[in-house]
Amino acid sequence: MGTVPLLSDEEVSAEALAVFEDIRAVRGTDFINNFWRALAHDPVTLKATWERLKKVMGSGALDPLVKEMLYVAVSTANGCSYCVHSHTAAAKARGMTAEQHGELLAVIGMAMQTNGLVTGLQVDVDEVFRA
Amino acid sequence: MGTVPLLSDEEVSAEALAVFEDIRAVRGTDFINNFWRALAHDPVTLKATWERLKKVMGSGALDPLVKEMLYVAVSTANGCSYCVHSHTAAAKARGMTAEQHGELLAVIGMAMQTNGLVTGLQVDVDEVFRA
Amino acid sequence: MGTVPLLSDEEVSAEALAVFEDIRAVRGTDFINNFWRALAHDPVTLKATWERLKKVMGSGALDPLVKEMLYVAVSTANGCSYCVHSHTAAAKARGMTAEQHGELLAVIGMAMQTNGLVTGLQVDVDEVFRA
Amino acid sequence: MGTVPLLSDEEVSAEALAVFEDIRAVRGTDFINNFWRALAHDPVTLKATWERLKKVMGSGALDPLVKEMLYVAVSTANGCSYCVHSHTAAAKARGMTAEQHGELLAVIGMAMQTNGLVTGLQVDVDEVFRA
Amino acid sequence: MGTVPLLSDEEVSAEALAVFEDIRAVRGTDFINNFWRALAHDPVTLKATWERLKKVMGSGALDPLVKEMLYVAVSTANGCSYCVHSHTAAAKARGMTAEQHGELLAVIGMAMQTNGLVTGLQVDVDEVFRA
Amino acid sequence: MGTVPLLSDEEVSAEALAVFEDIRAVRGTDFINNFWRALAHDPVTLKATWERLKKVMGSGALDPLVKEMLYVAVSTANGCSYCVHSHTAAAKARGMTAEQHGELLAVIGMAMQTNGLVTGLQVDVDEVFRA
Repeated sequence: MGTVPLLSDEEVSAEALAVFEDIRAVRGTDFINNFWRALAHDPVTLKATWERLKKVMGSGALDPLVKEMLYVAVSTANGCSYCVHSHTAAAKARGMTAEQHGELLAVIGMAMQTNGLVTGLQVDVDEVFRA
Repeated sequence: MGTVPLLSDEEVSAEALAVFEDIRAVRGTDFINNFWRALAHDPVTLKATWERLKKVMGSGALDPLVKEMLYVAVSTANGCSYCVHSHTAAAKARGMTAEQHGELLAVIGMAMQTNGLVTGLQVDVDEVFRA
Repeated sequence: MGTVPLLSDEEVSAEALAVFEDIRAVRGTDFINNFWRALAHDPVTLKATWERLKKVMGSGALDPLVKEMLYVAVSTANGCSYCVHSHTAAAKARGMTAEQHGELLAVIGMAMQTNGLVTGLQVDVDEVFRA
Repeated sequence: MGTVPLLSDEEVSAEALAVFEDIRAVRGTDFINNFWRALAHDPVTLKATWERLKKVMGSGALDPLVKEMLYVAVSTANGCSYCVHSHTAAAKARGMTAEQHGELLAVIGMAMQTNGLVTGLQVDVDEVFRA
Repeated sequence: MGTVPLLSDEEVSAEALAVFEDIRAVRGTDFINNFWRALAHDPVTLKATWERLKKVMGSGALDPLVKEMLYVAVSTANGCSYCVHSHTAAAKARGMTAEQHGELLAVIGMAMQTNGLVTGLQVDVDEVFRA
Repeated sequence: MGTVPLLSDEEVSAEALAVFEDIRAVRGTDFINNFWRALAHDPVTLKATWERLKKVMGSGALDPLVKEMLYVAVSTANGCSYCVHSHTAAAKARGMTAEQHGELLAVIGMAMQTNGLVTGLQVDVDEVFRA
């Protein structure tokens, strides 16, 4: 268990339940994953996080699948186990193939490796890269 | 300056110079950025890194532009200043628009935020997310 | 289990047992948590860590509850699951309310988010912020 | 310079300028720091970030000064140089004394150290710490 | 379980099986640990990672035991639980004593602590340290 | 400049000056690097950090040069620019050759890469690796 208990629909506030209902409507499923059940202890942060997530992860100039893969990349670099699991599942649900998953991981590994080499070498930024 | 001096074409070994020539051929430019000039102190790692990078970042199941954005995402989470600069420049060179850049940053910020919330809450992984 | 077995009171050295006794006296409980039982393999580091922790986390210019919350913040950013659990429990023991816990998490999430945005944008430090 | 140019008041959109004006009103100063001038390339994220920051960092169950110190703690663990500078300056502006600054840093150092020891030892979480 | 199922010898491709056989030959054991069984979904990355690892971690200017301890140090700072476990086991297999393990952890803790202090203080690099 | 000004010998307290003198005596040089001049604002933390560092980094079951390389590894993973510079310089002062430096960086890069792959795959720890 976590640092707070997970809250059932019966235990959350009316404000939090309204967020749960919107999550269900947007996602087309009754399932509410553990993150939201833990965050529901603070309905204001729950609502702010969901509202922003809904907007950021929706369609735009980038494809929603690409956004889920970016989420996996950040979460992996930060070592967030739950986030890697949940956003890998979300990427698969949006059609990520095994081959794409393999390339995603290969890019993450490559970036981690050169992040380490560059930081160990303390390479100065080339002037041409600055905006 | 970094933890090693940057090496000019005249200063590197023949093996390293061959890597520089391949970088120039693949990229269609004479320019060799500082990372490779620092890494050239170790021609074996230089060659291994370049060969793998060339393969990983090329066309495949994922678009090269998507790969560059994934690279930026990992590098940002790891706080690698040089890498953020160089791969943002690479993404722009591959056509990343200002709007796409904005969405890339918004997804990174969103992921960082929920990485923090999830880790602070120590949320258990939902069974449904496990492969 | 971890990378070393946890040591019982019967298994630790006399020097380590003396540290355990001081932990018990300072905290007013017989309970010794797993961190110290793992660290007891190296009595010198055990003693140095406990002595410094006792001093740093005690009363001073900052309230001990504030210090526990700062500990949670750092541990969350570093992804240290054990540390998030133990110092959230310590903060609760020092009176952290559910509302304060919620605000702590909201600040952590906010900071993580802007850390990501700032690093992705590679913003130059304003002159006015430098000491 | 960063990955995007900083925007002057004359260069930003009307929506971004409205956010700048609110920042000025809330903070009681004409000064807009570089973070907002970089983020202004994406007025939607600029507005969402500022609105949430204003709410999260204001008075509540935790003191605004405590919140600024938590921000410094997270930003330090994440290695965000700009963020450490800007939120240390904010904490000083809210009255952080040199002695409090010293204790803040000592707690950060202590937490980093035991984060490392715990992760290296891979200590199992004590049952008593779970919610 | 992870984000992909672990693959048995019967489930992997011929190319992946050839890598498994080389791992067995080099290590002198039939045991293939979970990392390789997960990575086998992508035989190209499996092969590239193993080939590079074999070369990097072998004898050279640094002792293989020192290399395993460096691996533990990086993995600890990155919070990679699996990696800390597997490379601590590898270091022990190469003869790391309990006393050396204790010193390894003490150095990691010390480095983490001063990383935090330095980043919190934003100390300028002394000219004399630059190459 | 950092978040606090660097203090000259004339500006520090008597307690801090005594630490400076011990640093000079142990290192056999008059030079005091910026880290200590920044940390001197808090003489208690200055003294505790130096005393512990002196003990941890000295001769023991591990060679001082190995310890400096471990320090570089941790500092690189944490992205601490100052620490990478200062401990790379310290390793060179203790005799690290260019070839050893190259292997150190190669191991760091390798570890970063597999840290990313393992975390992205969320590989379960093999039972055989647990103590």
